Amino acid sequence: MIKKVSIALSMIATLSISATAGGLMEQAKNAGLKPIPQDSLELAKLIDNPKNRVTAKKVELGKKLYFEPRLSKSGLISCNTCHNLATGGVDGVGPATGHMWTANPHHLNSPTVYNAVFFDKQFWDGRSPDLEDQAQGPIQAAPEMAATKEHVEAVVNSIPEYVKEFQDAYENPKMKPTFKDVADVIAVFERTLVTPSRYDDYLNGKEDALTKEEKEGLKVFIDKGCASCHNGIALGGSMKPFPVTGKYKYANVGDFKGDKSGMVKTPTLRNILETRPYYHNGAVWDIKEAIKIMGETQLGTKISDDEANKIATFFGALTGKKPDVSYPMLPASNNNTPKPNLK
Amino acid sequence: MIKKVSIALSMIATLSISATAGGLMEQAKNAGLKPIPQDSLELAKLIDNPKNRVTAKKVELGKKLYFEPRLSKSGLISCNTCHNLATGGVDGVGPATGHMWTANPHHLNSPTVYNAVFFDKQFWDGRSPDLEDQAQGPIQAAPEMAATKEHVEAVVNSIPEYVKEFQDAYENPKMKPTFKDVADVIAVFERTLVTPSRYDDYLNGKEDALTKEEKEGLKVFIDKGCASCHNGIALGGSMKPFPVTGKYKYANVGDFKGDKSGMVKTPTLRNILETRPYYHNGAVWDIKEAIKIMGETQLGTKISDDEANKIATFFGALTGKKPDVSYPMLPASNNNTPKPNLK
Repeated sequence: MIKKVSIALSMIATLSISATAGGLMEQAKNAGLKPIPQDSLELAKLIDNPKNRVTAKKVELGKKLYFEPRLSKSGLISCNTCHNLATGGVDGVGPATGHMWTANPHHLNSPTVYNAVFFDKQFWDGRSPDLEDQAQGPIQAAPEMAATKEHVEAVVNSIPEYVKEFQDAYENPKMKPTFKDVADVIAVFERTLVTPSRYDDYLNGKEDALTKEEKEGLKVFIDKGCASCHNGIALGGSMKPFPVTGKYKYANVGDFKGDKSGMVKTPTLRNILETRPYYHNGAVWDIKEAIKIMGETQLGTKISDDEANKIATFFGALTGKKPDVSYPMLPASNNNTPKPNLK
Repeated sequence: MIKKVSIALSMIATLSISATAGGLMEQAKNAGLKPIPQDSLELAKLIDNPKNRVTAKKVELGKKLYFEPRLSKSGLISCNTCHNLATGGVDGVGPATGHMWTANPHHLNSPTVYNAVFFDKQFWDGRSPDLEDQAQGPIQAAPEMAATKEHVEAVVNSIPEYVKEFQDAYENPKMKPTFKDVADVIAVFERTLVTPSRYDDYLNGKEDALTKEEKEGLKVFIDKGCASCHNGIALGGSMKPFPVTGKYKYANVGDFKGDKSGMVKTPTLRNILETRPYYHNGAVWDIKEAIKIMGETQLGTKISDDEANKIATFFGALTGKKPDVSYPMLPASNNNTPKPNLK
């Protein structure tokens, strides 16, 4: 099926080879590539969750808790430790490494938090439907933040400033924030972490937003069939067939098997040049090597050095503008705050 | 000597008990307490280093490198990991814990980076004369960032954006930044991390900047002799006699012995309510307990619950306004950048 799509796209590409650049824009849209909306109201609707509305107060509180190491058992690890907003929303190491320096037992690499709001599913095996649900996972995972729900609730409720911020954000003066509330506001903050780039300007109709070379790369990207998985706003984020075992460099995944059908979440390509190493196990460091392996294993096609170079050049246009984040000053602990436990 | 000073101060205190608050202000100055200058030019001179001038470009570059985990061997630990600007400039755990989850072998607690520019010496044993020298230590220390000079230089020189920022900051288009240069710009950023508070407004002459209760606490603080060590702008930062072994809770310091004369650096009291746990080994979590133990062991005097409460109330006025720090977006790694090594 993927090969058929790829072949079909190649035919379209051949037909449109001398077409105007407008033709490429059309081709990109037909391949399922979508821009981040320019219109702020449209974007606001897109990132919102009717069950957990995005409000300014929740964003501000969620930002604090995103950077809050005291949510972890050790007091040393925050969401930002592995999904570092300074470095493309990732940690830059192979397997995610958390509490007591423990590597992810499935050798899984930390995916970026930027633009995760656009993913169909969360986690590499897609087990989580949205960011609210996802945010509950790493806080509790033994090799990540290793906290219990009770620990998180005790920390937050021990600090009057946090309690008041929750009460203000939810307009409930009697609120005692729960673990779910903590995850919910973190998710609201994460919903705002979108990174529009020149690529979006292009898809939104600005013909000269991409260089000639980037357009060539985009064309190769589509023609080779990459967009059969890397599509939508995130250029990824949906579940696709993926060989989790085999002879390839990314075979070292412990007992990770994807979802029930063996499907694995396609990573976003936005900011991909900032999020080395690549694949769900972080086994490949060179973007061109990563592109070529994907051609071979996923598309059954050889991607030449020249083509990989062109695609990588296009990827440069996916490096987006990050939201301005003022580093939060967190309220102080006190005698009621649980002490960190480094063991 | 300390006791004599303490007694002398007590006498002054007794004499001035019904004096005007202006009397307390005078008493504070006589006890060696100094405000952060209000005048920005005066402050700029005070935090500058003639051998490593503070400039806007160096501050901005130094900020990035302060938050740069790739300087560490693992790629996971930055200066900000242990001296977290979000949490009073500290990590909030007992002994500092770094590379491979290793605790400081001397059980030493991470001191705050805020206002460290005002310290006479750096490190608990005062072995470092200034922040430029200090910043070289933790990057290389095995239980902290565990990097070699060569690693740091290879990382920074592999990333063209960093090289260009150094060249711009030093107005040297051929500059290849060295390990010392990296430490120097980090130190420049740290020099700007000062936190003026209402206490400074008071010492600068604003009579109503402190509440009645805070003034009472300041008076007890001086009368008890606390300012014999906790003085100067930092209310600390100089080397003083300190029992590093003995029957007290803070005896657990491994083989730490202070400097050659057994002196230990007095920690700053600025933002002290944000920097639990206390002492060089982080053994005491309750500020009132910490105050009372200091009275007993350092001043040879009993500090009552009521007096400790008053001093702690005064400490609230030492919580200062932190500089606004926009979280830096760090330039991407590439194929020339050394890979992280988590072992």
